[in-house]
Amino acid sequence: MSLSMYQSSIPIFIHMLGNLRNILQKGATHATNKNFDASILVNSRLAPDMFALARQVQIATDMVKGCAARLASIEPPKYDDTETTIDELIARIDKTISFLKEFSPAQIDNTEAKEITLALRTRTLNFDGKTYLQHFVIPNMYFHITTTYNILRHNGVELGKQDFIGG
Amino acid sequence: MSLSMYQSSIPIFIHMLGNLRNILQKGATHATNKNFDASILVNSRLAPDMFALARQVQIATDMVKGCAARLASIEPPKYDDTETTIDELIARIDKTISFLKEFSPAQIDNTEAKEITLALRTRTLNFDGKTYLQHFVIPNMYFHITTTYNILRHNGVELGKQDFIGG
Repeated sequence: MSLSMYQSSIPIFIHMLGNLRNILQKGATHATNKNFDASILVNSRLAPDMFALARQVQIATDMVKGCAARLASIEPPKYDDTETTIDELIARIDKTISFLKEFSPAQIDNTEAKEITLALRTRTLNFDGKTYLQHFVIPNMYFHITTTYNILRHNGVELGKQDFIGG
Repeated sequence: MSLSMYQSSIPIFIHMLGNLRNILQKGATHATNKNFDASILVNSRLAPDMFALARQVQIATDMVKGCAARLASIEPPKYDDTETTIDELIARIDKTISFLKEFSPAQIDNTEAKEITLALRTRTLNFDGKTYLQHFVIPNMYFHITTTYNILRHNGVELGKQDFIGG
């Protein structure tokens, strides 16, 4: 018995993006109930030199679509990063979930040792597939989803840990 | 080839607790440089009804020590939750890292299907070992470490994503 690369990635990504979607939806509902423009939440941040909520969601989705694509040796789809509303961010999440659902276990499994090269702005990262998934993609995904949650909580949206963990 | 339960838990926990330790250390240094009592950071929170930093660190450590113990069928050690300073929180992290280092792969591997029962205050959760690790412990660990990071960032501590991801 063992954990497969597929089971350790795609279903977890889909689950967490579903939770992120619900969290954002609660933010939008809160804004409606309090009569303020939900784009204020989209532009909120926890520190002046941290990314605003929109960028948190963009990076979370980029992390997981990039992971699925790279492990399966296909080109990661490019998204435009132009979202300015919660509805647009939710549409981006839905697009990412649909993309993730296209992958079969056979495309992702047995990629533990696959060479992954990630060209960042200032440097290039080299991983094996397992390290890329467990030490880069997963911590980054949780970081940006948690930070989205924290930005909303900090702005008064009623969320609980269960919204983050999911059903 | 596959991912083992040990490799998917203990080394990742130790790595992330090391990062959490460094993040807290930077918080303490920031307080010293700015001439304020670091316990202000320990008591900071992002919303009035969220846990303060101390509790975030306590839960993060509880999650991973509980996971190692339960997968290995030993009694999780009880910690007193009395920390009020960054030094005490760092000591708790160090104690947890030492505890985690005692586990051998043989104690943790092949626990994917092990029955795990978690008695919470209001309900009992039942998992298999794999689901407990991947859908409960890991998201909770990242949630509480990210929230610690966010509390410090929100209070002006100079941290970057690299402090969260680690070397």
